[in-house]
Amino acid sequence: MSPPPRDALHFPQSSRPFLEPYLPLHRSWHNPYLPDDSTPFPFTTLTFAQSLDSSISLAPGTQTALSGPETKAMTHYLRARHDGILVGIGTALADDPSLNCRLEGVGGYGGRGLNMQPRPVIVDPKGRWLDVAEGSKVMKLARERRGRGPWVVMAWTDDSEVLGRVNAIDRLLEGVGGKVLMVEPRTNKETEEKRLDWGDVLAMLKREGLDSLMVEGGQRVINELLREEYQELVNLVIITIAPTWLGQGGVVVSPERKSAEQGNASAVGRLTNTRWQQMGDDVVLCGQLPHKK
Amino acid sequence: MSPPPRDALHFPQSSRPFLEPYLPLHRSWHNPYLPDDSTPFPFTTLTFAQSLDSSISLAPGTQTALSGPETKAMTHYLRARHDGILVGIGTALADDPSLNCRLEGVGGYGGRGLNMQPRPVIVDPKGRWLDVAEGSKVMKLARERRGRGPWVVMAWTDDSEVLGRVNAIDRLLEGVGGKVLMVEPRTNKETEEKRLDWGDVLAMLKREGLDSLMVEGGQRVINELLREEYQELVNLVIITIAPTWLGQGGVVVSPERKSAEQGNASAVGRLTNTRWQQMGDDVVLCGQLPHKK
Repeated sequence: MSPPPRDALHFPQSSRPFLEPYLPLHRSWHNPYLPDDSTPFPFTTLTFAQSLDSSISLAPGTQTALSGPETKAMTHYLRARHDGILVGIGTALADDPSLNCRLEGVGGYGGRGLNMQPRPVIVDPKGRWLDVAEGSKVMKLARERRGRGPWVVMAWTDDSEVLGRVNAIDRLLEGVGGKVLMVEPRTNKETEEKRLDWGDVLAMLKREGLDSLMVEGGQRVINELLREEYQELVNLVIITIAPTWLGQGGVVVSPERKSAEQGNASAVGRLTNTRWQQMGDDVVLCGQLPHKK
Repeated sequence: MSPPPRDALHFPQSSRPFLEPYLPLHRSWHNPYLPDDSTPFPFTTLTFAQSLDSSISLAPGTQTALSGPETKAMTHYLRARHDGILVGIGTALADDPSLNCRLEGVGGYGGRGLNMQPRPVIVDPKGRWLDVAEGSKVMKLARERRGRGPWVVMAWTDDSEVLGRVNAIDRLLEGVGGKVLMVEPRTNKETEEKRLDWGDVLAMLKREGLDSLMVEGGQRVINELLREEYQELVNLVIITIAPTWLGQGGVVVSPERKSAEQGNASAVGRLTNTRWQQMGDDVVLCGQLPHKK
């Protein structure tokens, strides 16, 4: 084994026991406490870093460094503990995220092959990623064998322009072991708008072999998965909170309420089984949404 | 000493060391580490409870139970450790808050007289409190000697209707040892709007004998004191965060940015010297704003 490259991150053993009871178990461990594998969905962890005023960045399309080095290393540890990392196309375009795991000892960072490297998943219904794919960090890391080839989740369509993008992205991904996954969109009965349903997307990823998935953003994806209708798809929430206010105008995590009636408003969700742990100046919150069967 | 009444709260000794390094010291303790008393302002602690999405209540004018019993008891412990508790008129009208300390052993709750009871302060420039004062909890508790008579901070004016309110409130307060304090408003050069300046209000309270002050809300007061121009008036911030999302449409704590330019946006403030402590399901954050001289 080669020594880990300079940019490898170290997440101390002492910080791990706090997370352990919440995390999914590797299938290979054959643990009797494994969750029932008959569920059609991956073990799904929603994780992000926010300010005290619930912003994940200062403005749309910009990346804001919020959390300190301790929680950055934790994020990479969590990536090693999941089969896949999912982001929405907005984040893929705005941040050009690496979506790999840079923890020391993982494949590409001192470890063999792609051992423990999660699968990058980009949810991109219309194939907008094509415009930036070639020069993206995800593709560069996959070519360098420091990350897996990404999966791009698109919506079934008969629009020839979009189909052209499907094919173009698929050709790009072939060379690095990635692929395009097509999901049938559902039609909203009221608005007649077609869109991907999170249940369909997650079930597809499970069928493709991902038993665990870490959803990292962005705002739209997080706010959707926190809506009451999708909460039961989320097994674990891990939020880093930095002791800072980004101020009015930031990109805010706050789910839509079920009912627009202010008079009858109630909380959209509450985490149970919570544990808060200070890391550096930040705090990390682990908790579960109670609706999960 | 009579036994503490049934509604007295208990805040365990074991939870106190976490807060101690941050708190103001009682003048009577003659501690050499006391902050220099030449400052014209009280030691000011900003404290509130919020959801993960930074809301302090579900809708304007409603009170939302956010935090658990442990942090409620902590709030009353903090009240005993300050000379005064301040709220804005919006909160006084919407919540009818008690603004006393119900910690066991404090005056009215097992202790002598009004020992350790903080002074309630309502910032109410135009005297709107008059409409509810008579039947308010603050007045009731003051009459029962379970809380001090409130001070109402109003704006100097020559408006005879408002002056009538000043006199009426003053008469009400006389009977319970409270009073009206008048502060000269300042005129905004751009908008020509007259309003109270927080520096003037806090300096007045210090001159009146409050060496320490706990500011508890509401949204408008908190968001103003977190603006860059007022941060140096704040010595300590204590925030309870409950692991819940109130959802879009809540009453949000998020300070205004100095500049409206999105491109140049930067964080409005960051706490230093932070400590996070889990209490029940919630976390309590203590920290200081770095601008304080």
